[in-house]
Amino acid sequence: MKIGIFGTGDVGKTLSSALTQRGHEVMLGTREVRRKMEEKPGGDDSVSFRDWLSKHKKVLVGSFAEAAAHGDLLMNATAGHASLEALATVRPADLKAKILIDISNALGPWQSGEMEMFVVNTDSLAERIQRAHPSTLVVKALNTVTAHVMVNPAGLAGGDHDLFVAGNDPEARDRVARFLRDEFGWRTVLDLGDLTAARGLEMMIMVWLKIWAALGTADFNYKIAR
Amino acid sequence: MKIGIFGTGDVGKTLSSALTQRGHEVMLGTREVRRKMEEKPGGDDSVSFRDWLSKHKKVLVGSFAEAAAHGDLLMNATAGHASLEALATVRPADLKAKILIDISNALGPWQSGEMEMFVVNTDSLAERIQRAHPSTLVVKALNTVTAHVMVNPAGLAGGDHDLFVAGNDPEARDRVARFLRDEFGWRTVLDLGDLTAARGLEMMIMVWLKIWAALGTADFNYKIAR
Repeated sequence: MKIGIFGTGDVGKTLSSALTQRGHEVMLGTREVRRKMEEKPGGDDSVSFRDWLSKHKKVLVGSFAEAAAHGDLLMNATAGHASLEALATVRPADLKAKILIDISNALGPWQSGEMEMFVVNTDSLAERIQRAHPSTLVVKALNTVTAHVMVNPAGLAGGDHDLFVAGNDPEARDRVARFLRDEFGWRTVLDLGDLTAARGLEMMIMVWLKIWAALGTADFNYKIAR
Repeated sequence: MKIGIFGTGDVGKTLSSALTQRGHEVMLGTREVRRKMEEKPGGDDSVSFRDWLSKHKKVLVGSFAEAAAHGDLLMNATAGHASLEALATVRPADLKAKILIDISNALGPWQSGEMEMFVVNTDSLAERIQRAHPSTLVVKALNTVTAHVMVNPAGLAGGDHDLFVAGNDPEARDRVARFLRDEFGWRTVLDLGDLTAARGLEMMIMVWLKIWAALGTADFNYKIAR
């Protein structure tokens, strides 16, 4: 399948690596390709994007608009505070009637001080994206786990933990749940209904950060015991 | 132990029943004892409070102030929107240096329309309670599960699921975690640190409500797979 992924951070790189290994044609979208290719290692990255790409030769790179044009399935892995701006640079025809798996969380840009979500409670980032692009099929998913757990659930607790989907189109939710099962091996993908459920899914980031701090690792996930 | 529980809803009744069976002296606190005793069955309650009490004769009933004076350990099981008002009727000396397990969620009073938390993101109800009563040892716990799971975790998935505590006093967190293990049999009580973690714990109610709707039952809980 042709897949366009917005964002070249840990999530975009991990997803594109896993999906090209599975035989998909993946294009990563970034704001300015040339600037990205000249970027030095920094922050959490010990290698530059160019060096990472030299080891993942099947991954294509383009602008956000090019990645959208490339993909039959789209994934938003940009930082939450930059998601709407990134999607605004895409031609509307390249978003129309396509599924967009929205992985973003409503955090950042980061400053010192306490963690704060920029949309919360009675609205969500996924709903903002849906309102900005009404003909796109936005499905919230994957935002509740760290990048390498997304693509390899079996590597954590034998795969016995859960993922969620939310979106306004039931068939799109089904297709995303099937995609996550087939491509990455997720056993349980719980359908939480329409996109208002993205509020709760995005608000989980606040307890996720505290559990991360308490455990000293991001290698955990929720299992719904029932 | 002498325990004072604020609130006579499902949570207060379930906790007081379980704790008196375990040999504790429990007083339930309510706004107006006489009015409560005259209440007809209604809402989710198929029996009146008076009839419930006639089957739980060891449970004492008093005002919020009397329940606070009675308890060496206190539990807040009032509806979130009424918690601060309830605690404001208590004599400060009866809250001083006591542990208050805060089980409330920042919801209500309920109207038609979408679910909305009245405190969220960079503050929490538990922190509001702590600021209003600075010499009380507020520990957030139990707000992430339905009442009968609180007192009988083994009745769900063999007890293989988790609870959390958050509070500014490490020793108080330890004591509450031990209390939950010893009295109800909780296996894992994860210490999330200071009371800012109550933000995330309270925000979980929004996804909890969606999981409840998706599963068609409140009989579930989170297990942190790791």
